[in-house]
Amino acid sequence: MEKKYVYSFNEGSKDMKAILGGKGANLAEMTKIGLPVPFGFTVTTEACNKYYEDGEKIDPAVVEEIKVKMAELEKVMGKKFGDPTDPLLVSVRSGAPISMPGMMDTILNLGLNDETVVALAKLTNNDRFAYDSYRRFIQMFGDVVLQISKKNFDEVFEGKKAEVGAEFDVDLTADDLKDIIAKYKVVVKNAIGREFPTEPEDQLMEAVTAVFRSWGNDRAILYRRLNDIPNDLGTAVNVQTMVFGNKGDTSGTGVAFTRNPATGENKIYGEFLVNAQGEDVVAGIRTPSPISEMEKSFPDAYKAFTHICEVLEKHYTDLQDMEFTVEEGKLFMLQTRAGKRTAQAAVKVAVDMVDEGLIDRKTAVLRIEPAFVEHLMHPRFDEEEEKKAVKIAHGLAASPGAASGKIVFNVDQAVSMKEAGEKVVLVRMETSPEDLAGMMSAEGILTARGGATSHAAVVARGMGKCCVTGCRELIIDEDASTVTVDGKTYGLGDWISVNGSNGNVYEGKIDMVQPDLSGDFGKIMQWADEFRTMKVRTNADTPRDAQQAVEFGAEGIGLCRTEHMFFDDARIPVFRQMIVARSEEERRVALAKLLPFQQSDFEGIYRAMGERPVNVRLLDPPLHEFLPKTEEEMEELSKISGLTVKEIKEQAATLHEFNPMLGHRGLRLAVTYPEIAEMQTEAIINAALNVSKELGIEIEPEIMIPLSGSEKELANVRETVVKTVERVFEEKGERLPYLVGTMIEVPRAALTADEIARQAEFFSFGTNDLTQMTFGFSRDDTARLIETYIDKNILENDPFKTLDQVGVGKLMKMAVENGKKTRPNIRLGICGEHGGDPKSVEFCHQIGLNYVSCSPFRVPVARLAAAQAAIKEERAK
Amino acid sequence: MEKKYVYSFNEGSKDMKAILGGKGANLAEMTKIGLPVPFGFTVTTEACNKYYEDGEKIDPAVVEEIKVKMAELEKVMGKKFGDPTDPLLVSVRSGAPISMPGMMDTILNLGLNDETVVALAKLTNNDRFAYDSYRRFIQMFGDVVLQISKKNFDEVFEGKKAEVGAEFDVDLTADDLKDIIAKYKVVVKNAIGREFPTEPEDQLMEAVTAVFRSWGNDRAILYRRLNDIPNDLGTAVNVQTMVFGNKGDTSGTGVAFTRNPATGENKIYGEFLVNAQGEDVVAGIRTPSPISEMEKSFPDAYKAFTHICEVLEKHYTDLQDMEFTVEEGKLFMLQTRAGKRTAQAAVKVAVDMVDEGLIDRKTAVLRIEPAFVEHLMHPRFDEEEEKKAVKIAHGLAASPGAASGKIVFNVDQAVSMKEAGEKVVLVRMETSPEDLAGMMSAEGILTARGGATSHAAVVARGMGKCCVTGCRELIIDEDASTVTVDGKTYGLGDWISVNGSNGNVYEGKIDMVQPDLSGDFGKIMQWADEFRTMKVRTNADTPRDAQQAVEFGAEGIGLCRTEHMFFDDARIPVFRQMIVARSEEERRVALAKLLPFQQSDFEGIYRAMGERPVNVRLLDPPLHEFLPKTEEEMEELSKISGLTVKEIKEQAATLHEFNPMLGHRGLRLAVTYPEIAEMQTEAIINAALNVSKELGIEIEPEIMIPLSGSEKELANVRETVVKTVERVFEEKGERLPYLVGTMIEVPRAALTADEIARQAEFFSFGTNDLTQMTFGFSRDDTARLIETYIDKNILENDPFKTLDQVGVGKLMKMAVENGKKTRPNIRLGICGEHGGDPKSVEFCHQIGLNYVSCSPFRVPVARLAAAQAAIKEERAK
Repeated sequence: MEKKYVYSFNEGSKDMKAILGGKGANLAEMTKIGLPVPFGFTVTTEACNKYYEDGEKIDPAVVEEIKVKMAELEKVMGKKFGDPTDPLLVSVRSGAPISMPGMMDTILNLGLNDETVVALAKLTNNDRFAYDSYRRFIQMFGDVVLQISKKNFDEVFEGKKAEVGAEFDVDLTADDLKDIIAKYKVVVKNAIGREFPTEPEDQLMEAVTAVFRSWGNDRAILYRRLNDIPNDLGTAVNVQTMVFGNKGDTSGTGVAFTRNPATGENKIYGEFLVNAQGEDVVAGIRTPSPISEMEKSFPDAYKAFTHICEVLEKHYTDLQDMEFTVEEGKLFMLQTRAGKRTAQAAVKVAVDMVDEGLIDRKTAVLRIEPAFVEHLMHPRFDEEEEKKAVKIAHGLAASPGAASGKIVFNVDQAVSMKEAGEKVVLVRMETSPEDLAGMMSAEGILTARGGATSHAAVVARGMGKCCVTGCRELIIDEDASTVTVDGKTYGLGDWISVNGSNGNVYEGKIDMVQPDLSGDFGKIMQWADEFRTMKVRTNADTPRDAQQAVEFGAEGIGLCRTEHMFFDDARIPVFRQMIVARSEEERRVALAKLLPFQQSDFEGIYRAMGERPVNVRLLDPPLHEFLPKTEEEMEELSKISGLTVKEIKEQAATLHEFNPMLGHRGLRLAVTYPEIAEMQTEAIINAALNVSKELGIEIEPEIMIPLSGSEKELANVRETVVKTVERVFEEKGERLPYLVGTMIEVPRAALTADEIARQAEFFSFGTNDLTQMTFGFSRDDTARLIETYIDKNILENDPFKTLDQVGVGKLMKMAVENGKKTRPNIRLGICGEHGGDPKSVEFCHQIGLNYVSCSPFRVPVARLAAAQAAIKEERAK
Repeated sequence: MEKKYVYSFNEGSKDMKAILGGKGANLAEMTKIGLPVPFGFTVTTEACNKYYEDGEKIDPAVVEEIKVKMAELEKVMGKKFGDPTDPLLVSVRSGAPISMPGMMDTILNLGLNDETVVALAKLTNNDRFAYDSYRRFIQMFGDVVLQISKKNFDEVFEGKKAEVGAEFDVDLTADDLKDIIAKYKVVVKNAIGREFPTEPEDQLMEAVTAVFRSWGNDRAILYRRLNDIPNDLGTAVNVQTMVFGNKGDTSGTGVAFTRNPATGENKIYGEFLVNAQGEDVVAGIRTPSPISEMEKSFPDAYKAFTHICEVLEKHYTDLQDMEFTVEEGKLFMLQTRAGKRTAQAAVKVAVDMVDEGLIDRKTAVLRIEPAFVEHLMHPRFDEEEEKKAVKIAHGLAASPGAASGKIVFNVDQAVSMKEAGEKVVLVRMETSPEDLAGMMSAEGILTARGGATSHAAVVARGMGKCCVTGCRELIIDEDASTVTVDGKTYGLGDWISVNGSNGNVYEGKIDMVQPDLSGDFGKIMQWADEFRTMKVRTNADTPRDAQQAVEFGAEGIGLCRTEHMFFDDARIPVFRQMIVARSEEERRVALAKLLPFQQSDFEGIYRAMGERPVNVRLLDPPLHEFLPKTEEEMEELSKISGLTVKEIKEQAATLHEFNPMLGHRGLRLAVTYPEIAEMQTEAIINAALNVSKELGIEIEPEIMIPLSGSEKELANVRETVVKTVERVFEEKGERLPYLVGTMIEVPRAALTADEIARQAEFFSFGTNDLTQMTFGFSRDDTARLIETYIDKNILENDPFKTLDQVGVGKLMKMAVENGKKTRPNIRLGICGEHGGDPKSVEFCHQIGLNYVSCSPFRVPVARLAAAQAAIKEERAK
């Protein structure tokens, strides 16, 4: 059978988007269910592809089919193309399978020429309308089809207005317009060397070709490249009988949503303009009325329209965004599609539609974009206020939410101003573990350096505070406590506002809106929990974080970073004493002092988590990260450790590394200093035994060994851990079940997961480091580079935000498959930042992880994403 | 069929090493070919494994078989175990499939007791001999079988010597020995609570069990773990009729090689001791005579022995290392095995044996350990002199060869003393690119920090200079120009000697031996070239290196590092100007000045290489590596660049990275600064066009893009390169064929090689970086850690020296397979340090690479290793 290149509206359906485009498929669907759609046909995307295959030539077979369909259209409409008494006029619009700006959009009134315009004037009894339509048609056709610069037409038009002293377009008379038309024709002839095409059929073929051509223009290509839309998708072309909303006061045009897209309220929402064509609504020259007022002017049409809204919502079972026209009292539908909506509206509409029996709960859960959840979780700026605020800089949207506060530049300023009851925003070059107290005191954090997984970003997300990083315009003088942007300098105490959801920085204060997590949002989350199969844990290092995460629905801790526990003023000196120890003996002295701290921390966490699993990671970062920096700190350390400041400096120098990320850290510390792992293991087991007795519950500690790269390496540390556990059991005369496992974060671990699994009862994918090493990207250094790569379309996403499924994901898949071969019931999770990213969560579900773990504030996002992944998988079966 | 656990010597052969052990298999082989071997039998390794499977119990079936074989032995020898007139005595020796120290070695004279000793005395007419044998037997059996501490026996023995005033053991009379025997028995009884076993059969079973047990002792386990010998190999036990070399002056014992193992000379080489047992030769109490003197004392036995040497060499077609005994004029062979030999001997023996028709050339090539080639390539210390020298420290053997020279601490000292005609050794904390001139002036390099792939190591290997790195005992004060080791301080101009082949550092001067690369060595290399299928290229950055490598047999350049070309005094300021440029315009100004330098370098290299392929890598290292460090350098840069010193410092600060290895380097530079890649490409193509015209040859440049991690990233830079090439072609009106490819050194590139190959005509595995990122090991930081890991048996080898086939190798295999899927004729090579490591070269052959590339001095090693890999593969078919 010959390929069919053109479909009448009564031959298609909404499921044919791939060949009819979104607009065409929905016009066909509305036609199918009997709604009043001006009849027409769609030239398929395949015809467009053929055009390009044939070297930008329209296939004669396609031309032939268009002619056949045009004849059919004439028959249906009882009008003829070019008929000097009752001419058929059509609109020509592009419509790709994916909504795509950049292409030729619309040509209206095609079919007009010197003869048919007369007929139109007579039929509408409106000369001005007819000649204005003709004038617009020539201008539009000249611009987009004949590619004649707009300004040639504008000159003529504005010249005429000046000549006759017209202030507005509407002040021009029919005769003025006739004169303009004559001059337009001259413009065209001068530009293309031939007359403006008067045969409607020629006009049509040229217009269809122009749509095809616009698929290949630079703007469209760029858009596709940026959005990763395949070039061979092609665009369809819709040819539709014109209806006129500008035939006088019994006509009009409008756009509307079946429900309020901002609030979700179940009430038609939209705008309507009497005596106007679609483009007038968009152009904004006249102010449209709210849709409700349509009822007064067009009661019948309005009734018909509200009915159609109901029909469409029932049919599509979703909020619709529609265009329509009323011609002399009669309603015509020109477009319908799923309406874009705010986070709040999405939630309300989904829940309402379940109540109304329109959709089931699974569909409702699928309707909520996980990104919406983050919006709903955090305080945000009042939208109107934010629009009015003075934006001074833009950085990476590193942790969502918004904050206004007085600028502070260091921990001391932050803490003391916070204590004085002020709201502050911490502004720094970058943050380090020593800034923690300052970050906790701040409403928001702003840094000049660092990427999406810099210290500031990671810690801020953990705290649920908004954060903007990598804001390169900032010139920060930390000593002087000033920050200069674009020549303007702000000092300590000046108000600043940062939006961690969009990366914007504003001067001054902006009003806030607080989040509400119950109600409809709570319902959606509850349904999500029913449908998901993957558990959601949290990354938490303190009882407070753990508690917060449980409130957000966390079912356990997937990563407890023990190093974060040492930053307390009372502990850091002892921890440093451990670091500068020059022998095992010296080290054990310090470790003995750290043990009770660590144990009580674990007890607090176990109390907060109850019987939920808690995965504790042994010490991970390179030790030199914790070294004293100031002379004062060194002297304090000198007192406590008994080393001279000179000795401390020497010891610090031996710890220096060129590439700390690839240096002496992770389980490598435990191989060389097993006594550290012993202390931490003892603290974990003691705490678990104590709290399980205290609360009468069963605790099964998970002890996680970071950074393993080979079975033997892991076996070495596992032995240290297991021996210590057994020693503690023996000393206490009590036991409990426990698991020992490892992080998979070094590529070699993923590559040899079959061997590694012999020593590990669980794997937790540390996808931050795995991404660093798989790409060879230091996350501290490549934030800028990654931005450039995204700009240049080398990367689609920041791989530290959204998991790189092709590369890093391949390693994960290998690790899962090979790990299960060795140990079929191995427990599998992820604790990298990706555990809170919806696309990455879906991937984790697909490869069969048992849980994801993310910062407390991302737990609801992960819960929703996990549910969506499960529902999608079920539906794909 | 029942498993057979015991084989008589006439039932086995040399091919049964796995179950008979090395010693047993060769005893069987000698028996088979009719050589005079005292008869006996071997208990198999499988019996040993059964012993462990059964919980350290000897299987009754094994005991039964031993008894049957013992009876057979008695029958063959016409003697009986425990016979009071003519007793059979046996030796019991362990013998694993792989030579392995740490196990019980030998028990002689088993079968002696109070009755048989009398018979032995009568038969030999030598009381002292008989009782000394008995004494030794009890002592040895007590020690190794009954596990009674040696010192118990020593006390008795030394007590007796003191009592009778004997200075030497031989001063004790038969009666003294009888007394000692009586006391020994008391020692045994006190220790084990029962009498010394008098039944020969009990003695035998206990001895066999003791050998099995010794397989599981700590020393043996440790040795196996260190040498990666499987635990389930097991050891065999050889039971052999005793012959006595200590029956007086018609008896004797010796060890000999069929040829000289030091020089390879075809002349029997060994030592002989009259009236002695094997252990006396080893114990070194008496000085043995050269084997040639045996001819005088035992002309018949000597004749028989020389004949046996010929037979054995013909039979085994290799140099043999033998043990033998002459009993009353009759020769008995006790052991034969392939003899260990020096590098020189290995080459001479292999070539001679080909000339003699004993082996073919392929076998000769297989006989040379590739490590030998490195010894033969470099000057080395006179062995005897080195033994006498005072060793002061030990580091990593980073680049082979040896050197003596006066200590210098910096470039200036090195250059000026070298110019003054002195030999110098450069001693530094670590080296950087700025030390190059100093390294070139030095005979050898010694650093306190750094590993096998540190800057010093890599550059020294490139230069063929000896180098010891990571010598942590050194306390270097570069300002004061002193180095202190173990409390002793050496200054500028003091003599020092470093051996880069074993890592030793000596004070003072040691005499040298110069290498000879022609003669037999040249023959072996020529044969190797005939047999290998993989090409061998070199890593070379200068015409001089390229020339040198061609002399060593390099067939092309696999890696030309363009950054090394900028260290010249005339160039580095301009290069720095390029680095601190704040805009593309500023950068292009500097690049225009660099172009002629770079082009003339390439021309020099193309002239040196002729039509051999030359692979040039675009700029790779992070730019901040090249920044000026001193104020003086900054001022110079300020003049040339027009920036102030402050601006230079600011620009330098923006280039700082936390983990430069994972930062802005490799093709990332070319993505952000395409103008650098353009300049380099232009220089390459100009040079190739010029030299091909000048010499009338065909040059096919290979342009290598480093560090790619994704297809799009590579495509971006490839486009820059190809556009530039085409522009140059157009400007010049000339063309030549060229290839554009990439290094595979980021794990993600290996994982997505099918995609990457779409943009790459060749892959070159950069296994240094691939190893860094696959393991997460910074080679600058983990040298010490890797040492620890090797000590703890976590790593078998330094993965920067010998390719990690399990992890990194897996990625390489994936890349080869997937790369070929996309581009079947893709050119595949390796340019990491592993390209010169024999085991790694074999792996490269196995996975199907087209070539390996290594530093010039390793080219011969690689040629040999490649040949061996090809021969092995052919023979495995």
